Amino acid sequence: MNANIIRCARAILHVTDLEASRHFYVDVLGFIETEADDRHIYLRGLEEHTHHSLVLKKADEPCVEVLGYKVFSSDDLKALSVMFEQKGFATKWLKKGEQHAIGDAFRVQDVNGMPLEFFAEIEPAERMLQRYDMYKGARMQRIDHFNCMVSNVEQGYDFYQNKLGFACSEYTETENGNIWAAWLHRKQTVHDLALMNGKGPRLHHIGFSLPDPLAIIHACDVLAASGYGDKIERGPGRHGLSNAFFLYLRDPDGHRIELYNGDYLTSDPDFKPIRWAINDPMRQTFWGHEAPDCWFNEASSVLDILTEEKMDQEAAKLKQHKPTFVI
Amino acid sequence: MNANIIRCARAILHVTDLEASRHFYVDVLGFIETEADDRHIYLRGLEEHTHHSLVLKKADEPCVEVLGYKVFSSDDLKALSVMFEQKGFATKWLKKGEQHAIGDAFRVQDVNGMPLEFFAEIEPAERMLQRYDMYKGARMQRIDHFNCMVSNVEQGYDFYQNKLGFACSEYTETENGNIWAAWLHRKQTVHDLALMNGKGPRLHHIGFSLPDPLAIIHACDVLAASGYGDKIERGPGRHGLSNAFFLYLRDPDGHRIELYNGDYLTSDPDFKPIRWAINDPMRQTFWGHEAPDCWFNEASSVLDILTEEKMDQEAAKLKQHKPTFVI
Amino acid sequence: MNANIIRCARAILHVTDLEASRHFYVDVLGFIETEADDRHIYLRGLEEHTHHSLVLKKADEPCVEVLGYKVFSSDDLKALSVMFEQKGFATKWLKKGEQHAIGDAFRVQDVNGMPLEFFAEIEPAERMLQRYDMYKGARMQRIDHFNCMVSNVEQGYDFYQNKLGFACSEYTETENGNIWAAWLHRKQTVHDLALMNGKGPRLHHIGFSLPDPLAIIHACDVLAASGYGDKIERGPGRHGLSNAFFLYLRDPDGHRIELYNGDYLTSDPDFKPIRWAINDPMRQTFWGHEAPDCWFNEASSVLDILTEEKMDQEAAKLKQHKPTFVI
Amino acid sequence: MNANIIRCARAILHVTDLEASRHFYVDVLGFIETEADDRHIYLRGLEEHTHHSLVLKKADEPCVEVLGYKVFSSDDLKALSVMFEQKGFATKWLKKGEQHAIGDAFRVQDVNGMPLEFFAEIEPAERMLQRYDMYKGARMQRIDHFNCMVSNVEQGYDFYQNKLGFACSEYTETENGNIWAAWLHRKQTVHDLALMNGKGPRLHHIGFSLPDPLAIIHACDVLAASGYGDKIERGPGRHGLSNAFFLYLRDPDGHRIELYNGDYLTSDPDFKPIRWAINDPMRQTFWGHEAPDCWFNEASSVLDILTEEKMDQEAAKLKQHKPTFVI
Repeated sequence: MNANIIRCARAILHVTDLEASRHFYVDVLGFIETEADDRHIYLRGLEEHTHHSLVLKKADEPCVEVLGYKVFSSDDLKALSVMFEQKGFATKWLKKGEQHAIGDAFRVQDVNGMPLEFFAEIEPAERMLQRYDMYKGARMQRIDHFNCMVSNVEQGYDFYQNKLGFACSEYTETENGNIWAAWLHRKQTVHDLALMNGKGPRLHHIGFSLPDPLAIIHACDVLAASGYGDKIERGPGRHGLSNAFFLYLRDPDGHRIELYNGDYLTSDPDFKPIRWAINDPMRQTFWGHEAPDCWFNEASSVLDILTEEKMDQEAAKLKQHKPTFVI
Repeated sequence: MNANIIRCARAILHVTDLEASRHFYVDVLGFIETEADDRHIYLRGLEEHTHHSLVLKKADEPCVEVLGYKVFSSDDLKALSVMFEQKGFATKWLKKGEQHAIGDAFRVQDVNGMPLEFFAEIEPAERMLQRYDMYKGARMQRIDHFNCMVSNVEQGYDFYQNKLGFACSEYTETENGNIWAAWLHRKQTVHDLALMNGKGPRLHHIGFSLPDPLAIIHACDVLAASGYGDKIERGPGRHGLSNAFFLYLRDPDGHRIELYNGDYLTSDPDFKPIRWAINDPMRQTFWGHEAPDCWFNEASSVLDILTEEKMDQEAAKLKQHKPTFVI
Repeated sequence: MNANIIRCARAILHVTDLEASRHFYVDVLGFIETEADDRHIYLRGLEEHTHHSLVLKKADEPCVEVLGYKVFSSDDLKALSVMFEQKGFATKWLKKGEQHAIGDAFRVQDVNGMPLEFFAEIEPAERMLQRYDMYKGARMQRIDHFNCMVSNVEQGYDFYQNKLGFACSEYTETENGNIWAAWLHRKQTVHDLALMNGKGPRLHHIGFSLPDPLAIIHACDVLAASGYGDKIERGPGRHGLSNAFFLYLRDPDGHRIELYNGDYLTSDPDFKPIRWAINDPMRQTFWGHEAPDCWFNEASSVLDILTEEKMDQEAAKLKQHKPTFVI
Repeated sequence: MNANIIRCARAILHVTDLEASRHFYVDVLGFIETEADDRHIYLRGLEEHTHHSLVLKKADEPCVEVLGYKVFSSDDLKALSVMFEQKGFATKWLKKGEQHAIGDAFRVQDVNGMPLEFFAEIEPAERMLQRYDMYKGARMQRIDHFNCMVSNVEQGYDFYQNKLGFACSEYTETENGNIWAAWLHRKQTVHDLALMNGKGPRLHHIGFSLPDPLAIIHACDVLAASGYGDKIERGPGRHGLSNAFFLYLRDPDGHRIELYNGDYLTSDPDFKPIRWAINDPMRQTFWGHEAPDCWFNEASSVLDILTEEKMDQEAAKLKQHKPTFVI
């Protein structure tokens, strides 16, 4: 595999009320609004030098249009599309100019049906990392990862590693030796993509990186003071898996956002993926309250890249044998 | 009322296994062990210049022997005992030498049956505030408050304010205008004593002050890494009441400890006590997970100062009208 | 001495450019602007329930008009004025209505010539402690202390303790056994007032309390990003004396402000004042860079309460024997 | 250039007193001691899964033996050695077994004379990232970068980018358009290597990554409480360059260590290197005290890989035109 995918780079979320979303993401969480029109808001984190990492798009119902990965060059983009096409995946090209601030891109449904997009070019934007006077709310730094709930984790685990060049940092194994969940990365962090066993394809959450643990505590305070206390779905707590100090939020349309801190460097080829037994109680919750049922059961629907209709969902291949430790 | 009570100052907890308690309080939470013998461990926080603020005493079953307040002088001690005796309260004196490191003291059961102790003198100890090389675990700074579950909050609310000179910083009111819970102080913080409506007399928890919010997050990490993740009962979260950034722990005997940060200054006589309606969802939980049932229902039994038997408990005078907001 | 002084409560600073001051104090440091007119800005911290703790008053040159203490009641105010007058101090009364938001007040020059004001009444204001959505910059919480450079520290040390009921928490002693500097308090913190040996009467700085150490680091970042990096005169660092984690700023007129965190409780009468030898290198700087000369030499002039002219300054009574440890 | 260098990976420092070094690095800073014998101490950070990132080696005088980079595979190691040899660099191989815990390695002097080492294999060690009970002192996480003072920055800037595949994240330019200093990386952080114009070859410092800003403040407190306050040479402060929240320490032998936090992701090929003008006052010190002269003038000597004698040093090629902004 020669195509050099750099990292998870942006998501397009369909939302039903742009003003409600703007208040949540910009005023309260502290994203930078790069640009907007009457149908889109383009957001980026304080550290990001690219035009956006999140697009909120006005729609009739909430949905995930696409998850975008940035690749190294247009040659990589080409090579990647050839690989998909040779394997029989339908791709759809969007030429530069068709999407605001993005160069040539192609879309494809992955082996589990998640809608992906790859592009090499995105407009630059001023990096606000040292504009500390603009820091507010959760001090959102940058997009970190996608977490996808899919019906066949092992198929995805194999495809992303063997066809797309991802490496595995951590994974969860069932008592029967099946891969229940996997943390996969291209950039040198714990993940760009997590796959979790469940009804899918669905997007469980998008993770955004924060500069320090106190930013998460302050985010809770600001959310509560702004009337969004009920949008905190889980946390703060720490996962055993990934060592994340986490907070899970639901945006006004129910899309789930993770505020994430506590990552580590995954540059080394001799780093052994960390195995967690599915019944290890510290796997999900190193410490913290038990996750509520909705955290396990609810996730965002995704679109078919060709029909632009919602994808049908399949039941998880692996069965939940212990409801308290399902993920 | 002339007797000058300074502050809540120490508690004596009966514990069943001194070694288990030492590991929890000293190794993990980071209390300083001032002294110990085969039946007691004397603990203090990093900021405390007094011999101890917590005594762990070997016993057959867990219980609270007494909650101690420090008074300004021996004259205050005397005046206070006279006041109690004139009102018909039975007092019990322990002369200097009878209790390790403590001067003359008297004990008395308060209007709700909580076992109290007053003393003016306690041996000094080296303050470790600037011995940062000794900081570990939760970096326990100092004792902050007692939280008592009592059957008749209004009776206590009246007695502590009108007879003992406490001031009220915040309180919870029922729809009928009754005082459901009250935060009362002598020192210039939110409280030395909280009273909560419930089956009592019981000690709900002892609060200890921490230097900053990250100390609470680190405490969670250390507790989990030390195998005490299941001792975290509630939190981290923030109370509306008192503005506390909190974590509730259960010690090896089930006694509840609060790690507490986010206090404010209550020096001013024109500070209006803050009223919280019992049904205000932000009262208990400004943000954070719902408290588990055990947090509402379980608390430590207390001793009769004269018989040294467990006190009988009475049902709460006020009824729980909304189970989700009981405290 | 019967008059119950509660705490240091407000200062009136003369400034030459209200807009420049507003930008510094409100936009960058995060004070709440309670009210303003064309000659005054009234500021308070996030925790304060009183109308203001800092008044910026338009004037031709920078100066300190007065340092205000809040007393318990109008009886205390009266008793205090009688005490001063009986000792021959000239007082000047300002009746309720003469000063915005303040009740009856009297002013007096202290034994070293510092202009003081006492009052029992100040208008209330909404406390913003839980309006976390309004937190910005340094997250200023509340006024904490005045630090005064005076020619005769020992005279002040005696007067504030014996006539005004202050207690000493820490002090610096010369090799000859003289008091070089003293930390004195009424409220239960390290200080309401510090006296330092030097040319005086002058105000060295006003200290404001911050919620946690990271607020100081963030303040540095915001100051630098706002073009005020050169206003950071000293720090961040930690004093041995008082355990303060500190940052010293110079406002647009050169008045010095301390951002202060790391205080401790001083409620106990048996707390022994901490003695620091003047040559102990950890006294001033537990760690941190050497203070610049201007920190030792520059301070704000103060007004005569009667003439409203600048007070003449006298040389320090004690000589600097070691220039590197002058304070 | 095909050889895949992963990252800066270890340094070998000659120290004169192993016990003094152990106290400083292990007891105070909180490194994990993986192993030791009577001539070496092998240290790693809490996050590191490799045997060590720092070797302290007993010697008669302080010196830097070598700076080690980890490469992807033994093929990369071979390719790299061939490249160096073809360009006429003398290499020296150390076969597996000759160095404790390290596989085959070769050493070479870089274009400015810095002693480098490359290896693909290092023994694994248990990662202590979640052993929060072992966290102490500065909570050292992992090695981050080498900062080298060299006589010809531009020569190094060219060689590392064009021959070794490094990318530039930030650089300083003189008024004449020369590269005064450069931040270069292989892993996706700001740097693995910084080059600064000065008398060289010398090692200016080794940077270690810390988990959050408060870890630096706590490190200062612990250093001071442990009697090492005078080992803090510069900081805490923030660099404009790299956005580092920094603290510079001198170890017992004078080697300089940077505690480092505030990095950002450098994965993207379209990230434009950030140019800083040499006279921009925010370049070195976004905020913080002026660096002392010793920070500019003192650095560790390095060894000749062949003779094991100290390398001769050459004067900097570029002249210091403004002493206050020399680096």
